[in-house]
Amino acid sequence: MDKLKKKVKIIGFDADDTLWMNETYFRDTERKFAELMQKFASEKYVIDQLTEVEVKNIPLYGYGVKGFMLSMMETAVKIAGKQAGSEIIEGVLSLGNNLLEKPVVLLDNVRYVIEKLKNKYPLLLLTKGDLLDQQRKLKKSGLSSCFKHIEIMSDKKEQNYAEIFSLLSIRPDEFMMIGNSIKSDILPVLKLGAWAVHIPYHTTWVHEETSEDPTRFNRFYKLDSLKDLLKYIPY
Amino acid sequence: MDKLKKKVKIIGFDADDTLWMNETYFRDTERKFAELMQKFASEKYVIDQLTEVEVKNIPLYGYGVKGFMLSMMETAVKIAGKQAGSEIIEGVLSLGNNLLEKPVVLLDNVRYVIEKLKNKYPLLLLTKGDLLDQQRKLKKSGLSSCFKHIEIMSDKKEQNYAEIFSLLSIRPDEFMMIGNSIKSDILPVLKLGAWAVHIPYHTTWVHEETSEDPTRFNRFYKLDSLKDLLKYIPY
Repeated sequence: MDKLKKKVKIIGFDADDTLWMNETYFRDTERKFAELMQKFASEKYVIDQLTEVEVKNIPLYGYGVKGFMLSMMETAVKIAGKQAGSEIIEGVLSLGNNLLEKPVVLLDNVRYVIEKLKNKYPLLLLTKGDLLDQQRKLKKSGLSSCFKHIEIMSDKKEQNYAEIFSLLSIRPDEFMMIGNSIKSDILPVLKLGAWAVHIPYHTTWVHEETSEDPTRFNRFYKLDSLKDLLKYIPY
Repeated sequence: MDKLKKKVKIIGFDADDTLWMNETYFRDTERKFAELMQKFASEKYVIDQLTEVEVKNIPLYGYGVKGFMLSMMETAVKIAGKQAGSEIIEGVLSLGNNLLEKPVVLLDNVRYVIEKLKNKYPLLLLTKGDLLDQQRKLKKSGLSSCFKHIEIMSDKKEQNYAEIFSLLSIRPDEFMMIGNSIKSDILPVLKLGAWAVHIPYHTTWVHEETSEDPTRFNRFYKLDSLKDLLKYIPY
């Protein structure tokens, strides 16, 4: 831990399900989409099909609400064929737009910890969602002034983080990433030699699951609460 | 010009219609969307309605192909009501996906100039589109290795550029922006005290039009061809 204290110069935060509630809203929207489709198939079938279409479309659309909306449209036609009419278009646009306008609910201790850290470290928001959507959420959270920059990443693999380190002219061991996804926020960062702090969230999207274990890396920390971070790094 | 030679340390390029053809594809897709809607309204009416919906949706969706697709869906229901059926959903998904898969056609002299400049300056791609789409285009262009970073901007106003200068720890007069939009690539950059080079493109989206004149700024250059830039800055 002593090494950590001396080295970290910039802290990166994941956004969704690290700073604020997100996955819950997506799961809720999936159920509402299944209701819209209840004439044609069961809730489970609709959601399974939607997940399949979403994952197929990631290389084309990337992540975020707009791609999710387009995948709902595609799933509707896939399931209902010619019976997918204007009520599907209107229903999906409405579900998606509601998702874009959801209130931002900060997770436990986020405001407290961010307010402490911002005085000592440039804080970055590193996220795979749509830029405008994440900016809107950050603004609604009241934490905009605490973050130096929002960086949208098309993916969160080693190469993507390496490019950010190069852009910021920092060494990996000067960077710490905090997030809820072992696959996206933790492993690639650890493999580059940076620090990573995992704060689990109760729901993980199937596409974010991984069986790889990060505990073999010595710059890895798992905390039950973000607040515990303040025990380990100066602020 | 002598001052310019000494100061510029980083060069930013707009992407669409500066490096490669883009607006032409969008205009072509609008016409194909109007064909899809020809049972319901004239080409002119459909395109006018679509433009209105697109501009209305910018605060919600931002820029890029995915938002354009969602705006086509919305326009279809606005015009055709309950008659907008599955063929609209399929047609729009197909038009949008085709747009995402279009070949990248570099504009005149782009490859030549970029290959010259990359050895002396870190080059950035600064764009309002969808990240994944711009990454794909850059990759297809064969110029990926010439650019240090792609930065997605939710808008291209003074504040957005100021944040980038802060992130990169550079002064405005160390930065030069090259682009085809007076409103987005030129004026905000000049107002911050940076250098701006306008390379006009034959088509400008109505939302990018401005009546403000950049010639009153002394760090402004208008070039007929990107190649002329090499007369002014060392490489």
